[in-house]
Amino acid sequence: MKRKIRMGMVGGGKGAFIGSVHRMAAALDGRIELVCGAFSSSPEKSKESGLELMIAADRVYTSYQEMFKEEAALAEGERMDFVSVVTPNHMHFPVCMEAMKYGFNIVCDKPMTLNLEEAKKIEDEVKKTGIVFCLTHNYTGYPLVKEAKERVKAGQIGEIRKIVVEYPQGWLSSKLEDSEQKQASWRTDPSQSGASCCMGDIGSHAENLAEYITGLKISGLCADLTTFVPGRRLDDDGNVLLKFANGAKGILYASQISVGEENSLHIRVYGTKGAIEWDQMNPNSLVMKWPDRPMETLRAGQAYLGKAALGSTRVPPGHPEGFIEAFANLYRNFATVLSNKLEGKASSDIELDFPKASDGVRGLAFIETVVESSTSDKKWMKFKE
Amino acid sequence: MKRKIRMGMVGGGKGAFIGSVHRMAAALDGRIELVCGAFSSSPEKSKESGLELMIAADRVYTSYQEMFKEEAALAEGERMDFVSVVTPNHMHFPVCMEAMKYGFNIVCDKPMTLNLEEAKKIEDEVKKTGIVFCLTHNYTGYPLVKEAKERVKAGQIGEIRKIVVEYPQGWLSSKLEDSEQKQASWRTDPSQSGASCCMGDIGSHAENLAEYITGLKISGLCADLTTFVPGRRLDDDGNVLLKFANGAKGILYASQISVGEENSLHIRVYGTKGAIEWDQMNPNSLVMKWPDRPMETLRAGQAYLGKAALGSTRVPPGHPEGFIEAFANLYRNFATVLSNKLEGKASSDIELDFPKASDGVRGLAFIETVVESSTSDKKWMKFKE
Amino acid sequence: MKRKIRMGMVGGGKGAFIGSVHRMAAALDGRIELVCGAFSSSPEKSKESGLELMIAADRVYTSYQEMFKEEAALAEGERMDFVSVVTPNHMHFPVCMEAMKYGFNIVCDKPMTLNLEEAKKIEDEVKKTGIVFCLTHNYTGYPLVKEAKERVKAGQIGEIRKIVVEYPQGWLSSKLEDSEQKQASWRTDPSQSGASCCMGDIGSHAENLAEYITGLKISGLCADLTTFVPGRRLDDDGNVLLKFANGAKGILYASQISVGEENSLHIRVYGTKGAIEWDQMNPNSLVMKWPDRPMETLRAGQAYLGKAALGSTRVPPGHPEGFIEAFANLYRNFATVLSNKLEGKASSDIELDFPKASDGVRGLAFIETVVESSTSDKKWMKFKE
Amino acid sequence: MKRKIRMGMVGGGKGAFIGSVHRMAAALDGRIELVCGAFSSSPEKSKESGLELMIAADRVYTSYQEMFKEEAALAEGERMDFVSVVTPNHMHFPVCMEAMKYGFNIVCDKPMTLNLEEAKKIEDEVKKTGIVFCLTHNYTGYPLVKEAKERVKAGQIGEIRKIVVEYPQGWLSSKLEDSEQKQASWRTDPSQSGASCCMGDIGSHAENLAEYITGLKISGLCADLTTFVPGRRLDDDGNVLLKFANGAKGILYASQISVGEENSLHIRVYGTKGAIEWDQMNPNSLVMKWPDRPMETLRAGQAYLGKAALGSTRVPPGHPEGFIEAFANLYRNFATVLSNKLEGKASSDIELDFPKASDGVRGLAFIETVVESSTSDKKWMKFKE
Repeated sequence: MKRKIRMGMVGGGKGAFIGSVHRMAAALDGRIELVCGAFSSSPEKSKESGLELMIAADRVYTSYQEMFKEEAALAEGERMDFVSVVTPNHMHFPVCMEAMKYGFNIVCDKPMTLNLEEAKKIEDEVKKTGIVFCLTHNYTGYPLVKEAKERVKAGQIGEIRKIVVEYPQGWLSSKLEDSEQKQASWRTDPSQSGASCCMGDIGSHAENLAEYITGLKISGLCADLTTFVPGRRLDDDGNVLLKFANGAKGILYASQISVGEENSLHIRVYGTKGAIEWDQMNPNSLVMKWPDRPMETLRAGQAYLGKAALGSTRVPPGHPEGFIEAFANLYRNFATVLSNKLEGKASSDIELDFPKASDGVRGLAFIETVVESSTSDKKWMKFKE
Repeated sequence: MKRKIRMGMVGGGKGAFIGSVHRMAAALDGRIELVCGAFSSSPEKSKESGLELMIAADRVYTSYQEMFKEEAALAEGERMDFVSVVTPNHMHFPVCMEAMKYGFNIVCDKPMTLNLEEAKKIEDEVKKTGIVFCLTHNYTGYPLVKEAKERVKAGQIGEIRKIVVEYPQGWLSSKLEDSEQKQASWRTDPSQSGASCCMGDIGSHAENLAEYITGLKISGLCADLTTFVPGRRLDDDGNVLLKFANGAKGILYASQISVGEENSLHIRVYGTKGAIEWDQMNPNSLVMKWPDRPMETLRAGQAYLGKAALGSTRVPPGHPEGFIEAFANLYRNFATVLSNKLEGKASSDIELDFPKASDGVRGLAFIETVVESSTSDKKWMKFKE
Repeated sequence: MKRKIRMGMVGGGKGAFIGSVHRMAAALDGRIELVCGAFSSSPEKSKESGLELMIAADRVYTSYQEMFKEEAALAEGERMDFVSVVTPNHMHFPVCMEAMKYGFNIVCDKPMTLNLEEAKKIEDEVKKTGIVFCLTHNYTGYPLVKEAKERVKAGQIGEIRKIVVEYPQGWLSSKLEDSEQKQASWRTDPSQSGASCCMGDIGSHAENLAEYITGLKISGLCADLTTFVPGRRLDDDGNVLLKFANGAKGILYASQISVGEENSLHIRVYGTKGAIEWDQMNPNSLVMKWPDRPMETLRAGQAYLGKAALGSTRVPPGHPEGFIEAFANLYRNFATVLSNKLEGKASSDIELDFPKASDGVRGLAFIETVVESSTSDKKWMKFKE
Repeated sequence: MKRKIRMGMVGGGKGAFIGSVHRMAAALDGRIELVCGAFSSSPEKSKESGLELMIAADRVYTSYQEMFKEEAALAEGERMDFVSVVTPNHMHFPVCMEAMKYGFNIVCDKPMTLNLEEAKKIEDEVKKTGIVFCLTHNYTGYPLVKEAKERVKAGQIGEIRKIVVEYPQGWLSSKLEDSEQKQASWRTDPSQSGASCCMGDIGSHAENLAEYITGLKISGLCADLTTFVPGRRLDDDGNVLLKFANGAKGILYASQISVGEENSLHIRVYGTKGAIEWDQMNPNSLVMKWPDRPMETLRAGQAYLGKAALGSTRVPPGHPEGFIEAFANLYRNFATVLSNKLEGKASSDIELDFPKASDGVRGLAFIETVVESSTSDKKWMKFKE
């Protein structure tokens, strides 16, 4: 393909957090260019943001509807090839559905929708339209998460018995939503965020990571969600017992009131033959533990890693890569698959390794199951489908 | 007091693990001497062990009954001052009850008894006889565990919201009890170990540590115990959701099938103002986390620590102390309180800081509650009293 | 400024390492676009690389001379604004000198030249032409390195007494230059690399980092360089005693034969009041140690950091940033200063915080001093000027 | 042997640091009992200390001369079997020489004497008398230090190229000797401490550790000692370049003014095939690094370790052992060899694994060489013999 892939963006105006992450992730490898956007529901803010991003003025739109319509009218190669949807949660569904009417490919932030019903509709529509869809469960973009998945799949740790996945943060320990903090405001507002704050925003990442690495599905759970900060409208902490389809057991916990914690997504998986451990805040190491030989620390970029991991690093071992690079790995695979599609080529498994609409459905099913379990007297709740 | 405190021992013969720990812990500070023992239910083994330990032949007994009787007949200052009970769990109760008949003071390994009923009987008898009783929940002997307790009590982390305590081990990942491994055999045998293997052996340590540091009591829980190794007669893994009396929530998990884990007792406590974290495998550091200033790492032996912590180290900062020293701190406080008693002196709070029969009762209540909860369909189970 | 800054590149064709790092660093923030290049001394390779990078065919040049001439003929706003020089060391000097004839601004990889004499000529020419010049001693781009500098400057650790800076790698433990490994080949070839391999390639980073953070200058040194791999033409290891102008002492060591080490640049600075420690492989933490209070761990992105550090992170605390982001911080500051210049605005100290030609002169002086010291019987060698 | 080994002590009265360490180390395994002592040069203090230690009053002596004379007159089995010499440095020589007159076996703290000449005399006298002599370079007592030695000897890391050993402390950052701090006073007093403070007290440990693990001898060095604290009479910091007999190079540094450091003895050894790293403050782990496979972390107590390491742990993996246990390993081996001697049995290599008078000679040679080198203009100084 002799040209860059062209990206549009819905959301991500001034003051947004995740919009700029998407832009950096897309820009990093020099294969995607941002050509248009509807950056805010306020037309003025959208214009300002477009100007700051140095986008041609005539391609900064005042609404996503306008953007899709106008862009669709442009020639292939000039019009955007895909749209990144980086709005608060409640807008994911309408924007994605509208984009698919025009056949635009999509990168969508997570959770995919406000509820399971909407999630299934998106999944259906993606199938129907055949668009390329990527959901940014970005933690699966880390090289050593891919290595973990590969090694588990290869049977190196045997049959899995126990999974412990945790995601503590501390930033919502006080009632930040009462200040002007935009990130806190919409996440704690059910109409924008959905049925859960903590479990929706970060618990679903933990769920996705555990299922991605192990290849197992959660089959049942027992949840205890709590709202610790007085007056908050959604949960800010949750503890969950897990059952997996193969008989494995687990613990998942997520918290936004764990004072002093930053972004400590961390997973341990124990099998009959060995164990694997990964920590998002130290992402370039993967620890493997064995019953009868020394613990090993695998390091990003080393030649002993598998193809998926090695293909996901950009610099030699010891030159730390991080959150943005992992995020960029999703964009890169997405862009490759999109290029292949535009050129009529098939994509390999490694290229297709990014979260899809089906992950979004699992995520919403998880959120709805934990919310329901939390208010139930019954111990175990079947994972919704 | 111008003489050493005299210790007898029941159990701890050849092949035992915890007996030698008790002996080293007692010996370390040069204030306690081992003068007699009934080291095994086999008279021959007991004799052999006594010889190896270089104990006078006439004070190596063939049964604990004999030992108590004979020692009681000796003069004060010659006879043992206390007995260390280091048998498998099922013998704790009869040995302790017999010892108390003669008024011997006791150090007893944990869990205190096979069941809650026995535990309460011991607690009652301790009260009645007025003996000094120490239960070796040894992890509370670590200096920085004491510091954590003190800082929590002083309100440094505010009102507690969340407690995460975990204790993974991997040594029972395969069916070790089928080999000659004595430690595995009795721990997985309900008649010697009690209603639980994993929760009794190590889960109860986690429970004790959490309640010790926070000063809170578990009020309810929801447990999921599992036996992963086929043919094993007791649980080898357990995950528990916790509720505390003040409204705090928590997770406790213990495991003996977490391959590659050694002895990873680890606790995190989050309050409204800060958090505290301690890890048994790195015991000379205590981490405190704050919402608005850098994380601090407190180190054993440093002058900025409180009295309880400082009084529990023997060497300057940076000279690591470990498991045996922490265990010895229990013995040292016990010996001090015993000396005080023998001299008719009162003991200070810092001297009295070692686990007692009431901790043993909590421990058995914990074990019985998790076992019952684990087979129940009901989500929450009230903590037994 | 309403347009992106336009970058040309000399070097960085297929198989290069540092060229792609420069491109990613430049692309990350969406403010710089690569518009032209002479990517290889082989015209064909240059074309191929240009095609792969999706650069307009007429702006892929076959030599840097051609590129400067042709680009200079284009209109401002169309022609490149600056050139990135990412060739092996021996080409830095001719390319930079040629670029300055046309008044092009420059980003140049380090070490700046083959020798001190050339370095001084570049420094002079930069002054004369008034171009903006950035030398990519990229480790000073890390947020917590900036924080360290700021805190040292503010006197938080008192008067500096001791500096320990080390940079071990293991990748040249065997004779990699005998294989087709391009990176190893030119670095061990004196005609391309200069008087030193290990000290030139990484020792100079250590020197730069130490002087950047402490604000002190090395005044004398005693070096022991070694070539461990038989047949290698330059040093692959070096140990150096340091004296600083204020009386501080230090150790600097660099190694390419420290098997198993990746890229362990690490610095500790001890003053009369406190100490500071930073580790490139764990770059988002900065440790401060005190004589009388707990060690503190400062974390990237936290609100308690200074302006320079906070302005150099792109994501919230706990979302690790790494090597590429730090490198991008140099590009960002360079681009800002260049923008300011194009718009006739002055730049702030924070914007001007990137390594300059004077750093390049220090670097070459360091290299020449250690090489001379290493073969001398005299203990101390004055740092060249 | 059916009885405990009997220990006397010279020094170690109230306020001493190392005396109590020796007592705990000796007591830990229950095989040695303290029976007599001359605990202080002040007869009163000696009596008080003896009382506190609960030693029979008639065996608390007022001088070491008296003690040796009186004890020698007692029957074998009653009199002390060996003496522990735990005075300040300047008394090691006269006490040891006097003890050997009576044929007493000796455990002596390090450095062995005030100077090399004295050290050689002790070595000669030990040979002549045939006594068992142990010098407490205690860091070689750590299980994983023994493992490191064994693995290096077995060739696992190939031919050694580079050794980096460091020992920073911060406790003498201010002029502590002006206060009543006894430890600081004698260590900074040349008449009690010898020619060096920092290098004598801790640098010699680093030297001993490096030679113990690698089996190599330092052949030459280049030292830079500094006294940072104004008015101090001896060095409080030192940096040293090393040459080893096999061509390996190294760095050794020790410091007592590295604010915030506790007791950070740390060693890295790089060979042609691999590397080994050990850190005294995290002593139960040993890291091995490889060019082409993941880094391994070996853990104390694990079955994959060699005999020397396994025989030096007392509790299962994950139950941290520390400084006192390592120290006790020296005492245990010493006691075993002494028992063997008393019983006329030969000792194995593993039993004989403790530092001897020859280590003391190396230590003093090291101290004298660095002191001389530090004031010399010559770069390299041959290691004294």
